[in-house]
Amino acid sequence: MSLEGVYDDGNIFAKIIRGEAPSVKVYEDGDVLAFMDVFPQARGHLLVISKTDKARNLLEADPAALAKVVAITQKLTRAVTAALKPDGVIVSQFNGAPAGQTVYHLHFHIIPRWEGTPLGRHAEGMADVEELTALAAQISAKLDA
Amino acid sequence: MSLEGVYDDGNIFAKIIRGEAPSVKVYEDGDVLAFMDVFPQARGHLLVISKTDKARNLLEADPAALAKVVAITQKLTRAVTAALKPDGVIVSQFNGAPAGQTVYHLHFHIIPRWEGTPLGRHAEGMADVEELTALAAQISAKLDA
Repeated sequence: MSLEGVYDDGNIFAKIIRGEAPSVKVYEDGDVLAFMDVFPQARGHLLVISKTDKARNLLEADPAALAKVVAITQKLTRAVTAALKPDGVIVSQFNGAPAGQTVYHLHFHIIPRWEGTPLGRHAEGMADVEELTALAAQISAKLDA
Repeated sequence: MSLEGVYDDGNIFAKIIRGEAPSVKVYEDGDVLAFMDVFPQARGHLLVISKTDKARNLLEADPAALAKVVAITQKLTRAVTAALKPDGVIVSQFNGAPAGQTVYHLHFHIIPRWEGTPLGRHAEGMADVEELTALAAQISAKLDA
């Protein structure tokens, strides 16, 4: 899918927001939801989305909704760093398939990096839900700590 | 350099902000500066930074300064898309050397992607300044258009 198109209410993140699909949540408020990526590129790979803004990508995002998502992305980047002590963290946001986007609901990736550990390919394998749940607990415990 | 450390006023972006090093500017206001990456990974590769916040990375960023940088990052993502018609756009922000950070002043990358054109490696080669200047003019012409 390209940069042009229409928001599809049936996308997996829309289903997660509505509670129609499962997710391992790390943070939730009235505007923003963060959950573990089930196809993680690294241990602790998180996704942060707006619950209210039906934007497929950054181009379409409501600036106020975007500001809320980014504020939580910063807090979660701090939390994942405090919890997992990575050597680095990538924050990325993809617009359009040629940029790597696979779900057309605007999202930010938070991906911890460790020296000597290459980044995994997305969708290489589905993570163990118990392991994700344990990681989510470790990370959320460091929020606003 | 890791996630730990102290802001170095001698970094190249600090010099650009102070006017002590050249840059091909695309956007500037009292808080935010955007300029062309001189080692572009793709045509139209831009960087967006805070002029006021001495943060090495997202962990250290002042939330208000971050919000301003992200608001301009969105506007520039729209502008570069309108100007260059890429098939996709990557927005990324690296924290720490193992995540790909090379300059320790918080910055967002905006990198247009075209189907069939692989992403170049950063620092593969320095771009031609005349070419960057022409691109910057094309992009800034689409700001708030």
